[in-house]
Amino acid sequence: MSIQENKFQAIISHAKEYGFVFPSSEIYDGLSAVYDYGPNGSELKKNIRDYWWKSMTQLHDNIVGIDAAIFMHPTTWKASGHVDNFSDPMIDNKDSKKRYRVDHLIEAFADKLKEQGDEGEKKAGDLLAEMDQLLAKDDYAGLKQLIETNKISCGISGTCNWTEIRQFNLMFDTKLGSISEEADTIYLRPETAQGIFVNFLNVQKTARMKIPFGIAQTGKAFRNEIVARQFIFRMREFEQMEMQFFVRPGTQKEWYNFWKEERLKWHLSLGIAKEKYRFHDHAKLAHYADAALDIEYEFPFGFKEVEGIHSRTDFDLKNHQEYSKKKQQYFDNDLDENGKPYGNYIPYVVETSIGLDRMFLLILSEAYEEEMITKDDGTTDSRTVMHIPAKIAPTKLAILPLTKKDGLPEIATELMNDCKYSFKCFYEEKDAIGKRYRRQDAVGTPFCVTIDHQTKEDQTVTIRHRDSMLQERIPMSKVKEIVLAAIQ
Amino acid sequence: MSIQENKFQAIISHAKEYGFVFPSSEIYDGLSAVYDYGPNGSELKKNIRDYWWKSMTQLHDNIVGIDAAIFMHPTTWKASGHVDNFSDPMIDNKDSKKRYRVDHLIEAFADKLKEQGDEGEKKAGDLLAEMDQLLAKDDYAGLKQLIETNKISCGISGTCNWTEIRQFNLMFDTKLGSISEEADTIYLRPETAQGIFVNFLNVQKTARMKIPFGIAQTGKAFRNEIVARQFIFRMREFEQMEMQFFVRPGTQKEWYNFWKEERLKWHLSLGIAKEKYRFHDHAKLAHYADAALDIEYEFPFGFKEVEGIHSRTDFDLKNHQEYSKKKQQYFDNDLDENGKPYGNYIPYVVETSIGLDRMFLLILSEAYEEEMITKDDGTTDSRTVMHIPAKIAPTKLAILPLTKKDGLPEIATELMNDCKYSFKCFYEEKDAIGKRYRRQDAVGTPFCVTIDHQTKEDQTVTIRHRDSMLQERIPMSKVKEIVLAAIQ
Repeated sequence: MSIQENKFQAIISHAKEYGFVFPSSEIYDGLSAVYDYGPNGSELKKNIRDYWWKSMTQLHDNIVGIDAAIFMHPTTWKASGHVDNFSDPMIDNKDSKKRYRVDHLIEAFADKLKEQGDEGEKKAGDLLAEMDQLLAKDDYAGLKQLIETNKISCGISGTCNWTEIRQFNLMFDTKLGSISEEADTIYLRPETAQGIFVNFLNVQKTARMKIPFGIAQTGKAFRNEIVARQFIFRMREFEQMEMQFFVRPGTQKEWYNFWKEERLKWHLSLGIAKEKYRFHDHAKLAHYADAALDIEYEFPFGFKEVEGIHSRTDFDLKNHQEYSKKKQQYFDNDLDENGKPYGNYIPYVVETSIGLDRMFLLILSEAYEEEMITKDDGTTDSRTVMHIPAKIAPTKLAILPLTKKDGLPEIATELMNDCKYSFKCFYEEKDAIGKRYRRQDAVGTPFCVTIDHQTKEDQTVTIRHRDSMLQERIPMSKVKEIVLAAIQ
Repeated sequence: MSIQENKFQAIISHAKEYGFVFPSSEIYDGLSAVYDYGPNGSELKKNIRDYWWKSMTQLHDNIVGIDAAIFMHPTTWKASGHVDNFSDPMIDNKDSKKRYRVDHLIEAFADKLKEQGDEGEKKAGDLLAEMDQLLAKDDYAGLKQLIETNKISCGISGTCNWTEIRQFNLMFDTKLGSISEEADTIYLRPETAQGIFVNFLNVQKTARMKIPFGIAQTGKAFRNEIVARQFIFRMREFEQMEMQFFVRPGTQKEWYNFWKEERLKWHLSLGIAKEKYRFHDHAKLAHYADAALDIEYEFPFGFKEVEGIHSRTDFDLKNHQEYSKKKQQYFDNDLDENGKPYGNYIPYVVETSIGLDRMFLLILSEAYEEEMITKDDGTTDSRTVMHIPAKIAPTKLAILPLTKKDGLPEIATELMNDCKYSFKCFYEEKDAIGKRYRRQDAVGTPFCVTIDHQTKEDQTVTIRHRDSMLQERIPMSKVKEIVLAAIQ
């Protein structure tokens, strides 16, 4: 295993051991590609979500929020194109019954060819080029022939006994309704964006918004991924934080550039180094987009998308207008260069879409450190510390009376009661103080305060800073404001 | 329509008009019993959720949170009893194809009998008594005979041409997985509680909790209700805020009483009159409970459950232990009366379970007022005002420059920039000031501040209090602290 793979494995173990992330339904041996967030994880996830929500809806006075349901009218997904297009070509091996995504099957075979020297390398290149051409034409017969000609076999059965290639839709479906004969097939939303589009006019009118304006939303989405992997990076149930910004047609490029920079600033506001990020422009655009890029972060497994900025044109609103027969227009009474109102139009949309679980993984990856430290006596020691930015750390302050007696717990409880209404505190009176510090390091608590016998005399406490491990003697009355200053 | 029904209809209209609640996918004529929260609704809902979360996890140091997935291993629902028991007996009319819940069908018939004087009254009583007996015995043949004997007909077809009675499970199901032959049927969770139970030991160990302790969670749950009604009171997709408190067997009664009072206090802390609440003890207990009650609120449609307190015994953990073959025990090293550790046991559980959407409806019902007001000149006027408690109001402060010129917007923007990091503000410079006040009343904003020409001279502003409509002249530098004091 490489150092990076080791680090990733260490993060996954740490996440479980310290109550950040558990495999879902673990007592039943888990559910593939689904995870639960534990005590520290649920607080961290909530803090990231709140930080995004505040930055979007509270700090931008032209963005409002909504909270649309996961269930939507099924025609929504006809209009959005998901019923017809949100699928991958799949093939089943008749002997093993294993199903493969066609491109993954061929790519895996090409990878093996590449290991066979220059000639294999060339063969693989040709094969992949041909595959891309056939995929672009949706030529399934051609793809199947490609698989057969190259004798690509199933990894389990070892045979080339394949079914025809078929589309496999990634949406989960279920039945709604009481009357079985009339039960509607509905879908678990594969993206939160459509909840914003179908509410566009309701929001614009009731909140009296003028273009340009945005609608923000956080919430669960679901995709029946064939290959779910990399811990919480790609899950079947996940949470999105999306904002759709409605603009006058022709101005989308300018707003696309604005949001690209604005969103990067948001990431950097968490104190993460700029070098860990890069923009990746989409070479091939989705059918609804006239520009698109990913904001990528350097995870332990390489640079990967954490957020997307998409100029979605008027694709979605236009289709909802067509399918619902309800006008999705906005009347713009601003004046154009000829002094006439711009009038009625279907707005263009620039979207910012970030995965909350991916952002969570980003924070874990960025924060995790196994640090060698030199002690006062010159010996070395190690600690595992989570450098989680103070404003999103699960717990802000640990309050630790040095001993369980001599009235120290009472003083600690007083401080606790003074602080706990303002931010999340943790109280602990057991174990050696060094051990307690280490546990707080491991869950990312930025400040520890120790109450000792001197506190009784002069009302001072020791405050310890997580990252520097620096300890200072300060008046107990200053603790709250120091923590508040660091988290606001 | 009664005054109360009128009020309820008015609340529903107001909720839509002012961006609190929209019918889901309204452009497609809605999806039955599913709703979306608009700009004001999403903020109010989030604020209620945050208020609950903070009171549970931040203010109780023996309660931690989790955030478990909606998808769970299907065996979870075998163990919990939902696969076998979470269903209602249903009957279909063969002519109309309409499906009825058996008890609803018979009850509706009994209601009609009651209208026919004393004899009908008596007949209805006998019928309902017989129905209850048959339901208790799951005697479906007997129930069908009861329907036929009484010639109970379908309201649509008018015929008595009924199918057999069958169980209809209220869980939504879907298929997970890539290999069609192996695809698992999974369920959308009908309650969040099981996500807490299956994680009991993971949480107890990683967060090092000692009994008694609680695990809190908020999240979506889904029930395929046959008769969904009363706006957001009973929906097919809804959100729960649940806390499971794990206690030593034998102490559950004491904790049940504690949480009953504690939860009522929480409701009253929002400034709601005690008379609007009552406890309703369950006469008939669910199979898992040894005590249960509802906290009921007087909605416009009568006293109805908003929260449940349930003493669930060790039913859930014991069943998960049986189905998973994994011990669900806790080792209690506290000493009993004989000086010996209590040792290993499966904890008992006291649950507090509140519907977030119901709490939202409670707040709307409590806040909504059409008020007659007497103006300075003696004439009367009316206003619609939402007396939403300041700490959960969607917007805390509206900043309103009297005119769009003379530098007033610049001063207003300065105040906005000073306040917007601390709480949600709203800025508006258009329309007469009275009209702007009314709009803020209608969405429940507790404070409006007007910037006028005097502000330029002496840096004072007018602050207007929503409930009293009282206006005061105060230094602009005081605005932030006044609002902060009201919301903390």
